[in-house]
Amino acid sequence: MASRLKLIVAYDGGRFAGWQSQPNRNGVQDHLETAFANVVGERVSVHGAGRTDAGVHALGQCAHADLPVRRYSADRWRSALNGLLPPTIRIMRCRFVADSFHARFSAKGKMYRYRIWNGDVLPPLECGRAWHVRQPLDFDCMVRAGKFFVGRHDFSSFAANRGAPVEDTCRTLRRVHLRRAGPLVTIEFDGDGFLYKMARLMAGALVHAGSGKTSPQEIASRLRQARRRVTQAREVAPAGGLFLVRVRY
Amino acid sequence: MASRLKLIVAYDGGRFAGWQSQPNRNGVQDHLETAFANVVGERVSVHGAGRTDAGVHALGQCAHADLPVRRYSADRWRSALNGLLPPTIRIMRCRFVADSFHARFSAKGKMYRYRIWNGDVLPPLECGRAWHVRQPLDFDCMVRAGKFFVGRHDFSSFAANRGAPVEDTCRTLRRVHLRRAGPLVTIEFDGDGFLYKMARLMAGALVHAGSGKTSPQEIASRLRQARRRVTQAREVAPAGGLFLVRVRY
Repeated sequence: MASRLKLIVAYDGGRFAGWQSQPNRNGVQDHLETAFANVVGERVSVHGAGRTDAGVHALGQCAHADLPVRRYSADRWRSALNGLLPPTIRIMRCRFVADSFHARFSAKGKMYRYRIWNGDVLPPLECGRAWHVRQPLDFDCMVRAGKFFVGRHDFSSFAANRGAPVEDTCRTLRRVHLRRAGPLVTIEFDGDGFLYKMARLMAGALVHAGSGKTSPQEIASRLRQARRRVTQAREVAPAGGLFLVRVRY
Repeated sequence: MASRLKLIVAYDGGRFAGWQSQPNRNGVQDHLETAFANVVGERVSVHGAGRTDAGVHALGQCAHADLPVRRYSADRWRSALNGLLPPTIRIMRCRFVADSFHARFSAKGKMYRYRIWNGDVLPPLECGRAWHVRQPLDFDCMVRAGKFFVGRHDFSSFAANRGAPVEDTCRTLRRVHLRRAGPLVTIEFDGDGFLYKMARLMAGALVHAGSGKTSPQEIASRLRQARRRVTQAREVAPAGGLFLVRVRY
């Protein structure tokens, strides 16, 4: 009887070539599959809730794997895998789930966090963990701009192309929450799904609004321009500021 | 007229061979001196408030340097140096000071912070920034133990040897403050000076007390054993958990 293990995985995105399996085997998925293979003695496929790009961090990526035998308890699996993984990838929690659970297809939504350091100097320990924006940001303006994202929209003007065209580019954002603590501006995006680079393009648009390069209302007009040629300057916020916080099921 | 520049320096200790100049030129001091030499065109000595070991981080190390000419404003110096330094070393602030100021000899005290992750799994982004202690720690017991450090004591039983013997091993700790936020235990040591590895040996002793390996009172008896052969097991807490927060003048 095969057993399906659900994994909550955290990683330092700066150390790996993104989530997805790579020819050089430095995707987070590769490291997980290697760890499983070392315990099980045969190939185990690990299925993630979605990809993250190189540099993007995860606090709670979700994945599942089918094990040929239920040999160990979930806690034993966690210890065994963590013992084999690099310390910059950790199984935070894991448990056995029904075969009907699928990390990607069962997902109801995700929460991403984007961190911006709005000060003269980026502290060394924030290096690769926040976007350094020197120009003063108008926080209230960013909050107003963020509200335009909330709701159901065609987000194609906030997506990058990843080869195959995506048919349905409508997504629902439940919540966009901004907070400021000294020079640190944090944006949280909670939605039912995210197109390729959507979180980073939204963060880029909010920084444009905060720095006065565009008005908050231009986010609304850009959303209406979906599927048409985008005329405004788009900025993809750097990968290092983005954190996949959790996947909702 | 030479001008003395006071620097507040932050660095990710995991990337460098400690503060002090090294034969392989990978001390933080080496990087600073190279950056100065690139601007000034001649060798400039950088004097730190004290050394930090490889792995130990700094949020506010202090240093000074004498510049042959006062060519730029302090702000220009900060930008110029930060433009030449690796992003994991930053001049956070700098200003010109009187020649009577000396980063080391004028220092009245320092504040160190030690971070402990007391949970089953160390999150990847805490890797090299906290000591992972799996065994549950009795926080109240650590607080009681910490109080024994406060005041003026001969700390020689909480110091490692660094070649030349230190004549005066008496130091005054003004404050030892512990706080707990979920699995994260933070200890702050504020004192007029610290012997070699003293902060890490104190953190190690507090973890021993918190895990029940020793009683809080044993810290008092170990302080009384100063200059005598230490009989208790000593543990140097790992470098990555230690942060030099600020130098007081």
